Amino acid sequence: MNTSTAMHAFDTALHFETESPEHLRGRTQPDWANMVGPFGGITAATLLRAVEQHPECCGEPRALTVNFLAPIADGDFDIVVHAARINRTNQHWITELSQHGQAKATATAVFGIRADTWSDTEPEPPSAPPPEDIAASDLSNFIAWARNYDMRFVQGAVPHSDNGAHPSSTTTLWVRDSQPRSLDFAALTALCDVFYPRIYLRRGAFMPAGTITLTVYFHSNQQQLDAQGNDFLLAAAHANCFSHSYFDQTAQLWSRTGDLLATSHQLVYFKDPNPSL
Amino acid sequence: MNTSTAMHAFDTALHFETESPEHLRGRTQPDWANMVGPFGGITAATLLRAVEQHPECCGEPRALTVNFLAPIADGDFDIVVHAARINRTNQHWITELSQHGQAKATATAVFGIRADTWSDTEPEPPSAPPPEDIAASDLSNFIAWARNYDMRFVQGAVPHSDNGAHPSSTTTLWVRDSQPRSLDFAALTALCDVFYPRIYLRRGAFMPAGTITLTVYFHSNQQQLDAQGNDFLLAAAHANCFSHSYFDQTAQLWSRTGDLLATSHQLVYFKDPNPSL
Repeated sequence: MNTSTAMHAFDTALHFETESPEHLRGRTQPDWANMVGPFGGITAATLLRAVEQHPECCGEPRALTVNFLAPIADGDFDIVVHAARINRTNQHWITELSQHGQAKATATAVFGIRADTWSDTEPEPPSAPPPEDIAASDLSNFIAWARNYDMRFVQGAVPHSDNGAHPSSTTTLWVRDSQPRSLDFAALTALCDVFYPRIYLRRGAFMPAGTITLTVYFHSNQQQLDAQGNDFLLAAAHANCFSHSYFDQTAQLWSRTGDLLATSHQLVYFKDPNPSL
Repeated sequence: MNTSTAMHAFDTALHFETESPEHLRGRTQPDWANMVGPFGGITAATLLRAVEQHPECCGEPRALTVNFLAPIADGDFDIVVHAARINRTNQHWITELSQHGQAKATATAVFGIRADTWSDTEPEPPSAPPPEDIAASDLSNFIAWARNYDMRFVQGAVPHSDNGAHPSSTTTLWVRDSQPRSLDFAALTALCDVFYPRIYLRRGAFMPAGTITLTVYFHSNQQQLDAQGNDFLLAAAHANCFSHSYFDQTAQLWSRTGDLLATSHQLVYFKDPNPSL
């Protein structure tokens, strides 16, 4: 009888060999491949986890900014973790992912001790039918990493070649891990990058595009993530401005019960092959 | 006849002694003092300018993230500028501001060469009467740095002690330099942090609050900033979520002609003295 259980694909991607708490070694996983290099969300999660595993890391993540410097090649990578500042109630960390001595991604992370305070969420979650009433979209022919997620589009699904341009950049979807896994901050980080590039939707066309910087603000605590378990999150994203080869994206990730678990912002490079259309 | 012209307060704050392009020395200016340490916007502008002055810096800023690690004391500071990666069409920079060897702020900046592409802005600017029809607010008794800006509130002005709580965190104002100065990316950066803490408005009360991380996305190019000159910008900010001693803030900065020049996001720590109210 084989009682071993395979590690979850997410945990495999975030598995490190630890030379010291400041020097980690990991490797890219084919399961998480994007068009070029790994899915940005898994890289962001990897850099957050690199901080979380440090013995001096304390509290919970409040903010993370990841800068994508150059494509990450398939294979091994090194991560350096550095505490820029340890304060009484918060901590500032800097991490760098490199391959063969070449920096490929950097991140800054703020961890904090949460106090109970007055709380309020101003926006309402987008209205959406329950995920059980929507068919799952299979994007795995499009990108390998999509296989890791059960995605059910409410609005703004990936355009077909005959959809044409679309007046709004908004996509709303229900999303959760395909293989059940309890939500943690690293997984929430990856989910913040689950949206395909907004330019595809607006232009009704695929084109080279890649996130250049990604920021996540964590509004939830571990207790809220525990309550979430493996249930669907309602994820919504839109762009404000497309100009000069870049666009921004703002996203909200909601629990089914209406908790705003995280907000996220990113700037994306794009190369439009038909700029005059 | 004295023909000398005093340096603009903004340029004085961004004046460095340059030991090398990687090592700069500056000092805080009383004109830019906040409750504790200098106005966060001037610190962010300082760190952007530190990159801009580097001889290898190329293109225009596209994104900036500043992390505020600890209060900056009045006096001298050191800045280290480091190119994390120089690519063909973009550059990634890391800077750190320290005092007596203690890190006080770090920043990552992305610079890029802009190509003309398809462009679109999805949101509309907030509706507002012209700035000429609104009286300027004098906040200089409140904070020294406010003296540098001509602020005309359209919505969500600084609450008085008898305003009480407010259901919306949105503030909209016209703002420009009090002393005329042409807009550049550093000045636009500082303007992204011109909003008083959203928690004051929601709670109708002042309390300790400080930005912990600030991100700016620059949607404009130098030509658009040149067209702006010293005219008013329409600046709008709101929070999404207040929870566990932190809230986020999202801001848009518009030209009077309806160009979205920058968007900005930040996470702010607050300490509510009356959490049960």
